[in-house]
Amino acid sequence: MAGRLGGVAGAGKRAKARPNVTRERILAESARVFNRRGYDATTLDDIARALGVTKAALYYYVENKEDVLYQCHTKALDLATDAVQTALAQTPAPDEQLRIVFRRYIEGMTDQLAGAVVLLYEGALSPALNRRILDRRDAYERMLRGIVEDGIARGIFVPCDSKLVVFAILGALNWIPRWYDAAGPRAATDIATSFAEFFVRGLSTNPSSTTLLRP
Amino acid sequence: MAGRLGGVAGAGKRAKARPNVTRERILAESARVFNRRGYDATTLDDIARALGVTKAALYYYVENKEDVLYQCHTKALDLATDAVQTALAQTPAPDEQLRIVFRRYIEGMTDQLAGAVVLLYEGALSPALNRRILDRRDAYERMLRGIVEDGIARGIFVPCDSKLVVFAILGALNWIPRWYDAAGPRAATDIATSFAEFFVRGLSTNPSSTTLLRP
Repeated sequence: MAGRLGGVAGAGKRAKARPNVTRERILAESARVFNRRGYDATTLDDIARALGVTKAALYYYVENKEDVLYQCHTKALDLATDAVQTALAQTPAPDEQLRIVFRRYIEGMTDQLAGAVVLLYEGALSPALNRRILDRRDAYERMLRGIVEDGIARGIFVPCDSKLVVFAILGALNWIPRWYDAAGPRAATDIATSFAEFFVRGLSTNPSSTTLLRP
Repeated sequence: MAGRLGGVAGAGKRAKARPNVTRERILAESARVFNRRGYDATTLDDIARALGVTKAALYYYVENKEDVLYQCHTKALDLATDAVQTALAQTPAPDEQLRIVFRRYIEGMTDQLAGAVVLLYEGALSPALNRRILDRRDAYERMLRGIVEDGIARGIFVPCDSKLVVFAILGALNWIPRWYDAAGPRAATDIATSFAEFFVRGLSTNPSSTTLLRP
């Protein structure tokens, strides 16, 4: 698995000058390769090759493969948390809040390719880093459940087990990187609209939309 | 990664007598370990240890790790396909068909722990086996899209991009093994009902249910 590029100058040390690749591109490409091939089967050499840069360029931004995975998770959680905070600040209506949450997250994940790694296997991260990611993920799930429960309490959403509904939605969102193709026929905004309308309609007492498609 | 148990008698050969473990248990436990730890990081030794049997006992039923993964995928696809065929035979109503499909699949996957491995990474299976699984998966997705499109044509479901809706649903279903806990507070039948009602409500022109919970 190791060093198939071999003899990369400066591998293992930080490059002195800022290399011709951004942190964002590294994380996006790493997420893509992890999601396609699996974390364990992927090496830093694979990532460097996919980006067309040297391993030295990677070491300017990341310490090692575990650090890449941790930064990918952090970026995805930043995006998810930001989507919820934006939604809560923009409207008091739970159905509209969920629409904003899903649209912003999906568009961010697809259009910006924001490093949405979705699988956290046991042992891939050190216990301390693993705990940090799980704590942030739990907090995010609690925020989503809070919106659903607020909607139920106000009669906007039908009675449901909010935890199960949030698991269903997160599964659908987390699966997107497994099939999404930036060059495919579906624009990120169409995916975002379809998913948001489908989920909100599934929860709404009186669904306002008569289609799941973009108006 | 290899042979941490070491010196297992008969490893690599088929045991002569039927061992004290069933194919079903091997696939269920393998799926659980693959889903938790990742396919690449898992060895046949890990699976034998998790089952409390010798590697020789495993070799009675499986050729190697790739064969375990292939049999897991086949079993999950058998369950999924059987759910659709049962639904089509039981009712002509697309909404009721989907309820049957989701309930049967989720209950099968959780209660019987029917080897629901959900991730198929590039290179994990040989190209020929990989192709066979992908072809069956495509056929299954087409059947689901067919039910959704039938519902749209008959005015039972709202206009939507059936491919995106099916992707959303499959993501939610495929995610279940990542969080499901057989010893947890939620019965498989409650999960099945909540998911089925949520998806069907999200598609229905005039949702019949007023809750996502089990009546």
